[in-house]
Parts: sequence; structure tokens; C-alpha cells
Amino acid sequence: MPEPVTAALLVIGDEILSGRTKDKNIGFIADFLTERGIDLREVRVVPDVIAEIVAALNALRHRYTYVFTTGGIGPTHDDMTVDAVGAAFGVPVIEDPRAIALLLQRIKPDDLNEARRRMARVPQGAELVENAVSKAPGFKIDNVIVMAGVPAVMQAMLAAVAPSLEMGLPTLARSIAVGNIPEGAYAAELGAIAAAHPNLSIGSYPSIVDGKFANEIVVRGKDAEEIAAAVAAVETIIAALRAAGRDQYKIT
Amino acid sequence: MPEPVTAALLVIGDEILSGRTKDKNIGFIADFLTERGIDLREVRVVPDVIAEIVAALNALRHRYTYVFTTGGIGPTHDDMTVDAVGAAFGVPVIEDPRAIALLLQRIKPDDLNEARRRMARVPQGAELVENAVSKAPGFKIDNVIVMAGVPAVMQAMLAAVAPSLEMGLPTLARSIAVGNIPEGAYAAELGAIAAAHPNLSIGSYPSIVDGKFANEIVVRGKDAEEIAAAVAAVETIIAALRAAGRDQYKIT
Repeated sequence: MPEPVTAALLVIGDEILSGRTKDKNIGFIADFLTERGIDLREVRVVPDVIAEIVAALNALRHRYTYVFTTGGIGPTHDDMTVDAVGAAFGVPVIEDPRAIALLLQRIKPDDLNEARRRMARVPQGAELVENAVSKAPGFKIDNVIVMAGVPAVMQAMLAAVAPSLEMGLPTLARSIAVGNIPEGAYAAELGAIAAAHPNLSIGSYPSIVDGKFANEIVVRGKDAEEIAAAVAAVETIIAALRAAGRDQYKIT
Repeated sequence: MPEPVTAALLVIGDEILSGRTKDKNIGFIADFLTERGIDLREVRVVPDVIAEIVAALNALRHRYTYVFTTGGIGPTHDDMTVDAVGAAFGVPVIEDPRAIALLLQRIKPDDLNEARRRMARVPQGAELVENAVSKAPGFKIDNVIVMAGVPAVMQAMLAAVAPSLEMGLPTLARSIAVGNIPEGAYAAELGAIAAAHPNLSIGSYPSIVDGKFANEIVVRGKDAEEIAAAVAAVETIIAALRAAGRDQYKIT
């Protein structure tokens, strides 16, 4: 089996930690990576503090195939990501003439003030990541991909960088709706199925729908035949519980 | 000024990293903590892997006043949080008779099988955190508060633990709607205001509404008078830009 392609996501911004902004990027990026067979292994959210961003980046970038970051690349004083990435790699931050050219597609030359020029700064050696929404680019340096925090802009950058990403073996998933059968009624058998399939990830996920637990079992892995075998085994235990009336069970 | 009260959040679960489940707890907990003057400083999302959970917990619990965790405390094989917390603290995991009593409020004695008993396991020395929704408790050990992943259950546990939490000086926030005035038009002046108020956190947050950037400036801090002074300074620069017609500016 080929080496897995892995990723971490670093979300940068006081506004996520204060609750002021509810993150919408983690779930989107998780889906995007899963579709490409890239395993998202870790997410961190850190504040707008250079030392914190540097420490997180250096912890993550040596460990995973890719690190994606969101947030902190605008023109204002609280946008610290570019300097932090430069510091993490030990390279100077420079103004990139290609980025200036992109900004000038949207900004009149007279309006390209010092603050706006900040949006053309990148760590030396970075490649630009285009932004079809508002031009100011993200960038990629080594295995780190730096994107905006505004979801529509982040998504445009992710689309721009997508063709250059290594893809992994796709992860396949099958879900079995378990309804109101309580987890405790099938946990032992499910654990035995999971133990028999160490290459698969088998999860049991409760949620509450209309005040009742509605459980779902998800079988994930790379091998469709092995997944099918595990799903059949799960369906057998669930069918037996249903036949025994456990889906009318009051205890959840 | 008293020492700040700080927190980290550790979200545990493969389902968040695969995108299968979209996290709803980070934003809720961020709001909850901010309302209590507790500064959420860091969030991590890790998979259902004991070594990963232990490493993240040990990195976080020595650094912040509190660590909250969500996920991984149910009866199934993929619920690993209790064992990971025990390993992080170097204490055995025991079956807690108080937790068994809580489970028996909902489960008939004959149905209390081995899997369900797993929900009564806690690291030795933990206090239980009650769960008004489905009885199976969370727990608190030292400064670590372990909660369920299902949002309604997590919220019930957070409500149960709330009275015992130390509160910090409340963080006050005021927002200034900037509309379509581009960040680049006020970034320099805003940076000067931020530099003059190092005790405050001043952020500029773009979002896209109806295809246009709609910026908002948020001033946060502990001292209402200092916040009011910074807000007045921000409003002065924004009013000047508006008077100059920059809110009709086409460039965003």
C-alpha cells in the first residue's frame, strides 16, 4: 500500500477563539481533503500571536505531508500570518512583484498604499496561490499552504492549489443508519467487528433528532471489499436487534 | 490586574477530521467561556488514537487554567477518551459506583451490560459531571473537564460544571460596522490605534455579504473606558472615510 498522504489545518485568529466568528472552514477543508484521499490528521486554532503561530506551524509541518492555514493575510495590523510563516522557515519576507501585479488588477495604482502592499508580502521562495474572488493571493512555501480566512476566498484559493496537490488512495465510507437502537446494545459486537478489521475505521456516532438518539455506524477505509464485508457484519447484528424490537427500546 | 483565567479545547474524533460530522461545539464553548471572562487560547482536533489524545492533553493541561474535551466517552470501541485521560495523568481507570447509580436511573439493571458499564469508567480521583440529557456522566480530573461530543449532551455537561469554574475579568467587546469601505483604506490608522492601546485586541474582520466585502472592526478588552476611547478613535477615521465617499468605493 502506498504511503498515506496526510495534512494538518492551522486556523489563525482571535475571532474564532473569542466566539465572535464561527469557523466554517474546518468542515469544508475536511471534506475537500477526504475527497482527494488526503487524511486530515490534526487541526489547531491559535490566536493572532506570532510566537503561537510559529510554534504550531513548526510542530505540524514536519509531521504531515501538507499544512493548510486559514486567516491573517489581510492588510491590517492583526494580520500576522505572513511574518509568522517567514519566521517559522527562517526566511525573510519580501514584496512579490507578481503579487503586486495581481493587486493592480483590482486596485488603482494611486490607491496601492502601504497597507495594501502588505497583501503582496510573502516569505522568500513562496509560490503564489491565486484568488479568483478578490485577487490578493495566498501562497505555498515548501509543504505549507497559506490561505485567507473569509470562506469564499479560502475556497477560491483551495480550488487554485488543488491541481498541484498529491492525492492519496481515496477513503471510502459507508454508513448504516441504526435509528433508535441504543449504542450499548451493539457496542460489544461492533467492537469485535472493528478488531477483526484493523485496516478499517469503524465509528458509532450518536446524534439527537427530535429528542431521541439517532445512531449511525460509519465504516471507512481504502479497500471496498473489506468495507463491504464489515458492513455486512454490522447489518447482521443490527437486523437481529431490530427483529428483537430493540429499535422500539425506550432506553437510549 | 488579576491573572487571566485561560482555557484550551480538545476536540476528539475521527468524524470531525474526515468531514463526516461538522463540529458545532467549538463556537458554543468559545461563547460560553468568553461570557465568563475565561480566555480560550487554543483549540486542537485530534483523531481517536490514544497516543494523540495523551500528547495533546499533556501539552495543553500544563499551560492553561482549564482544558475542556469533547467526544469519545460513549460505550463503543472507538470511545477512547477515558483511557487516554487516565494515561495522561498516570492513574488507573476505575468503574465509579456513583456513575453506575446514574446509569441505573435510565437503564434497567438487566440491561447494564459490559459495554454500558464502560460509560461508568473514570480515571481514579475524577469528579463526575452530570448529564441532564442522557445520564451517562462526564468528569473532571484536576483541571481537565471531559464532556460528550453530541452538542446537546455537551451543553448539559457544560451547564453542570459552570458553577465550579473560576471566572475571569469579563472581556468586553464593541463592534463598528464598516460596510464596504475596504480594509486597505483604514489599515494604517487602525494599526496606529491598536499600537496606542496594547491592552486591547483590535481586529478587522472582512466577510462577503451579497458579493461585497462587509468589514467590521471589533475592539475587545477588559477596561470599558479604554475600549470607549479606542472605539471613538476608530469611529473618527471611519466617519472621515465615509464623508470622503469611500463607502461607495468600488475596490474591495
